[in-house]
Amino acid sequence: MSDHQFRDRAAIVGVGATPYSKNSGVSTLTMALRAISAAVEDAGLTLDDIDGVACHRVNDSAPASIVAESIGKQDLHFFLDQFGGGSTSHAIVGAAAMAVATGQAECVVCWRSVNARSEFRMGGTGRPPPDQLEFQYQYPYGYAHPPQQFAMIASEYMTNYGATSEDFGAVAIAQRWYAERNERALMRTPLTMEDYLASRWIVEPLRLFDCCLETDAGIAVVITSAERARDLRQAPVTISGAMWGSGHTLFSNRRPDLAISGSAAASPRLWAQAGVGPGEIDVAEIYDAFTPLVLIQMEDYGFCKKGEAGSFVRAGETGLGGSLPVNTHGGHLSEGYVHGLNHCVEAVHQLRHECGDRQVEGAEVALSTGQGGYVMGNSSAVVLRRAP
Amino acid sequence: MSDHQFRDRAAIVGVGATPYSKNSGVSTLTMALRAISAAVEDAGLTLDDIDGVACHRVNDSAPASIVAESIGKQDLHFFLDQFGGGSTSHAIVGAAAMAVATGQAECVVCWRSVNARSEFRMGGTGRPPPDQLEFQYQYPYGYAHPPQQFAMIASEYMTNYGATSEDFGAVAIAQRWYAERNERALMRTPLTMEDYLASRWIVEPLRLFDCCLETDAGIAVVITSAERARDLRQAPVTISGAMWGSGHTLFSNRRPDLAISGSAAASPRLWAQAGVGPGEIDVAEIYDAFTPLVLIQMEDYGFCKKGEAGSFVRAGETGLGGSLPVNTHGGHLSEGYVHGLNHCVEAVHQLRHECGDRQVEGAEVALSTGQGGYVMGNSSAVVLRRAP
Repeated sequence: MSDHQFRDRAAIVGVGATPYSKNSGVSTLTMALRAISAAVEDAGLTLDDIDGVACHRVNDSAPASIVAESIGKQDLHFFLDQFGGGSTSHAIVGAAAMAVATGQAECVVCWRSVNARSEFRMGGTGRPPPDQLEFQYQYPYGYAHPPQQFAMIASEYMTNYGATSEDFGAVAIAQRWYAERNERALMRTPLTMEDYLASRWIVEPLRLFDCCLETDAGIAVVITSAERARDLRQAPVTISGAMWGSGHTLFSNRRPDLAISGSAAASPRLWAQAGVGPGEIDVAEIYDAFTPLVLIQMEDYGFCKKGEAGSFVRAGETGLGGSLPVNTHGGHLSEGYVHGLNHCVEAVHQLRHECGDRQVEGAEVALSTGQGGYVMGNSSAVVLRRAP
Repeated sequence: MSDHQFRDRAAIVGVGATPYSKNSGVSTLTMALRAISAAVEDAGLTLDDIDGVACHRVNDSAPASIVAESIGKQDLHFFLDQFGGGSTSHAIVGAAAMAVATGQAECVVCWRSVNARSEFRMGGTGRPPPDQLEFQYQYPYGYAHPPQQFAMIASEYMTNYGATSEDFGAVAIAQRWYAERNERALMRTPLTMEDYLASRWIVEPLRLFDCCLETDAGIAVVITSAERARDLRQAPVTISGAMWGSGHTLFSNRRPDLAISGSAAASPRLWAQAGVGPGEIDVAEIYDAFTPLVLIQMEDYGFCKKGEAGSFVRAGETGLGGSLPVNTHGGHLSEGYVHGLNHCVEAVHQLRHECGDRQVEGAEVALSTGQGGYVMGNSSAVVLRRAP
């Protein structure tokens, strides 16, 4: 292994998704299998080629062992069934790349499957608190769900860095524009600043359109060696770098500034591993459970100085033709909320130049990120590259 | 990376454990921290050196993010919080070795912390069924806990391969002999075949002494590069090979023979990766939730032909001075049940030649295994080697 670890040794060769809906009518197991089958077919492979599996979940989805069993697997070479939400979405991709780069496994399928609207809603208080020690200090005060928690972050971001409601609105509007051009997206009617500012508070300073959707869907990606990828159906997209595990838990006493994510510390390492910097990113799919998270991460990954992402977005720079198209699928705000892995799928579509009216012209290098908060405040991300 | 992946590139440099008890009186978080601190100190490192964390759990223990936070970590280079029980115990060690071998992280601590007697008992039916699809077919019939489930395996093993109660008893007795010589062990009074045969049925054909303990404890191991290990306090123990993820879920319709574990298919791969065969193993710590699992795995890893492990044990071959000392700490049956990671710790102590009256003379190469069943029927294992 070089000093640059597993740079470009593994590639995403297939992607798949079920339709997004508010009521899938089927189990998370069924959706996982449908997404996996689609991704494997997209790659021009069969289920027989798969020798590793990786998923993340928070007790809301079929266990990896059951999914593996259901695709006929008996002797896997890599197995990952990871606790965690959005923070972990790109950790499973990075771990799979590591397994392939070391030769531990040859072909790993990663997925996330959720009935996050019809079955296990993230946004409510009705369900019992997860098995997380920090909740004992929060639930008794009615401080229980993600909009409340991320409202704290949004407030701190406004206070410390001067962000405004219009900055947040600009994120939602820019992403909706892309969603109008994405047939998978759930929210495809145009959104104006007037609509945004007129929308109701969910938890001040977060309005309705600051909050992601709650969605039923399954998503999968297939990863194999860069060498094998060259012989497969699609233009290979190599994994140039991956980082995960950085950041505080959301309500750490040690967290000096709620508006700085773990990616501030970790992204220089990611760029070094990938051999590129933020200036070389053609398109970024940035985890967006809530609009302020997009701005905060844009700054923490080095695209803007702290406090300047809002004006960058308001100037249209994240739109098509801007200097950094962001969340070109519409993101969790407008495409659907699949806990991060749909960002990775969109990055692959962009690098394969399959995105039609929302295609970033000549996209060669992409960033895709996950960002936790509720279960853990960690960051995860991959840098992807269209293989020459 | 060579064809042999990460062979001997990472090393276990520190191990730590809390006392074993039936009532720790403290949280799983506290025990995790105590075990981690002990392991880090054993290595001659400090918590500042740790840049990766890995644990496994089944909703019964502190999340990895909270543990990481509690040891002051803000920017981890590797993070693994894995769903799973015994099957996963050696997966986290293997994954940590992979992270170190690729340079993704420099120093990873792995742990398992359970109040498995005082808080979250594995062996009862009182708690709600875990989030496992297969349980819907079992709970309505009162078929709910591991002794019932592993009794099926034991029966099939007796039927298909001629194993006897005396074979099972010989395992319990051999391990108790070691436990008498292990001051950490909970069960240290001598056990005879008469005692064994007189003990009550738990679920026929499993008697009391066929079943592991239920224990409160925390266990940790620290892994860094083989290169760095040379400069640390202890004799380094390199990770020559690791495998995980092999095997059916326990009650798969596709499982042709309940008495063949996933390691039957996977162990040749493990041996190839490690560059040794079963004949070169000096000591084996074999996952022993129930006595038949030891025999089945001894066969599936290639130490004995199928159906011959019982007579091998009855002949004293797994005792000290035998051809394959097995579970030299007393195992889960007599030392304590920490879901597999204590087997790895014992393997390290043996390879460091620290085991006093139970030391396997000149031990150079060890096998340590995990074996699932309840949550998933997977196998995991590492081959460890005392660095020259």
